[in-house]
Amino acid sequence: MIIDCHGHYTTAPKALQVYRDAQIAALKHPQAPRAKGLVAITDDEIRESLENAQLKLQRERGTDVTVFSPRASAMAHHVGDETTSLHWSQHCNDLIARVCALYPKNFVGVCQLPQSPGVPPERSIPELERCVTELGFIGCNLNPDPSGGHWTSPPLVDRWWYPLYEKMVELDVPAMVHVSSSCNANFHATGAHYINADTTAFMQFLTADLFKDFPKLRFIIPHGGGAVPYHWGRYRGLAQDLKRPALGDLIRNNVFFDTCVYHLPGIELLVNVVPLDNILFGSEMVGAVRGIDPETGAYYDDTKRYIDALTTLGDADKRKIFEGNARKVYPRIAKAIG
Amino acid sequence: MIIDCHGHYTTAPKALQVYRDAQIAALKHPQAPRAKGLVAITDDEIRESLENAQLKLQRERGTDVTVFSPRASAMAHHVGDETTSLHWSQHCNDLIARVCALYPKNFVGVCQLPQSPGVPPERSIPELERCVTELGFIGCNLNPDPSGGHWTSPPLVDRWWYPLYEKMVELDVPAMVHVSSSCNANFHATGAHYINADTTAFMQFLTADLFKDFPKLRFIIPHGGGAVPYHWGRYRGLAQDLKRPALGDLIRNNVFFDTCVYHLPGIELLVNVVPLDNILFGSEMVGAVRGIDPETGAYYDDTKRYIDALTTLGDADKRKIFEGNARKVYPRIAKAIG
Repeated sequence: MIIDCHGHYTTAPKALQVYRDAQIAALKHPQAPRAKGLVAITDDEIRESLENAQLKLQRERGTDVTVFSPRASAMAHHVGDETTSLHWSQHCNDLIARVCALYPKNFVGVCQLPQSPGVPPERSIPELERCVTELGFIGCNLNPDPSGGHWTSPPLVDRWWYPLYEKMVELDVPAMVHVSSSCNANFHATGAHYINADTTAFMQFLTADLFKDFPKLRFIIPHGGGAVPYHWGRYRGLAQDLKRPALGDLIRNNVFFDTCVYHLPGIELLVNVVPLDNILFGSEMVGAVRGIDPETGAYYDDTKRYIDALTTLGDADKRKIFEGNARKVYPRIAKAIG
Repeated sequence: MIIDCHGHYTTAPKALQVYRDAQIAALKHPQAPRAKGLVAITDDEIRESLENAQLKLQRERGTDVTVFSPRASAMAHHVGDETTSLHWSQHCNDLIARVCALYPKNFVGVCQLPQSPGVPPERSIPELERCVTELGFIGCNLNPDPSGGHWTSPPLVDRWWYPLYEKMVELDVPAMVHVSSSCNANFHATGAHYINADTTAFMQFLTADLFKDFPKLRFIIPHGGGAVPYHWGRYRGLAQDLKRPALGDLIRNNVFFDTCVYHLPGIELLVNVVPLDNILFGSEMVGAVRGIDPETGAYYDDTKRYIDALTTLGDADKRKIFEGNARKVYPRIAKAIG
């Protein structure tokens, strides 16, 4: 079985964006009642949105199940306030739940959290709990920068985040560290903000004792770990200078990288330097890069091809990356897919 | 000849920090006169600060000349105001000039600019001009985020920066894109802020037509280009989706990466994916990582060893990386070292 740990519902029916546009327009009238409203989407519309996109690509590429979450760039936690974010998150998560109910063999859910700048992370607990216990989700996406490129929240290792972590451990669900769109003109979303957030989170984890406080807390750092594997020597050296544990020990049970790296040399580097137990197959499909690489004739984000092409890894190692590690990081997946 | 394009005076005599501490203390008395003051350092103190550090390492590692600039993390453009930054930059640059005068075969100067948050970049022109025309410097370090981790300036492709670029082109000097210390708790300076800035700058260059406006403008992106080479497929794909030029064309005469990547697999990736004409040898010595790698028994930042170890490159290619490309990017170096 091949589990893709990183997929977003980037192809959702238009009615979702219509809802969002209306929600944003209503922010101009702060005195009006804050109705949650409805997102009117039929099952057929959901099927149609997936059949020629994620499902088609799963079949073509030979992957089985996608750990599926709302479109990351659309989370936009910086828009409006806590209520805005709560209503929007609930609708987005409900839609993921409907996808998973329609295609239980193809998708398992991961939720967006109703974060908002300055709002304590524990306020996201009810929605996390709802998604896991009622909707059968197996994890969440945690935005380290709800401000959208201004980085106004405390670092992920700050006690500010601890109540949410306690709930994650209790529910036995991991978080993918995933920012959303950027409202800072310096940061292109998928070309800079995403990658920077990955690098930033890793360095935060390196410098603090978060995992002493939460030995069972687990994070997936997407996009192949940002810049980290390329600079693995730098991070080994920084850990050493700072008298921190060796990187392998530091991340062993707590920090995992996906394989959203869109060329073979990058994937080769990743599996060469990062412990194989800490790598999860992911493609970010359909996502940041949608074209076909003229150098290979295949989609850039068909990351399975790169792993298939690796000659340095045996079948057992590839099975870890494709399935085994994901089952360890997302233990609740067993209930969903057997 | 082996030219190291990335060295900082991280070992400057203590009197420099004493000056800086006093300058910062004086900020508490904004009504007091703004004297530039003196930095009292003897030539012998300068010699002593280098003999057992940069000069010793040059000899041991077999490099010839270092393109040398003030300590990057100490630029701290966010401290104080424009006057603070001007006085501090002038002293730091003067000290680099003294280093170069004492050891003209070992060091050529690159200046720190007196940037300050919100202050137009053209205000840095007089100091750039002084350093190049009077002190014989061959380039500058340009901080894309003088706010120190809050990213409040316009992107590097914004016309905000153009007057400075015009002067750089006129003087025929490049800039290394280099942030300073971070006053945002999210960003560890050398482990996150530096690398993020590199990635951010590259994506800014990718998305705009800056080099159509300035065909002769040249930037070095340090630390091996941040996350960019590891995600070369992602950036090729993003350029394609955004209908931008192919990366090789985009960077050809304008964007260069150094080799400050502290392990062999990273350097292998770099030379494998980035055009060899766009790679400059650099070590960031003495800098971000000071330890010895237990896996190799050598200093992490002895990046010459990694390049020496590359079996995929011939001597002519290595000469480009060690010398030829630097001579193209810093044409004024010829006057300094022949």
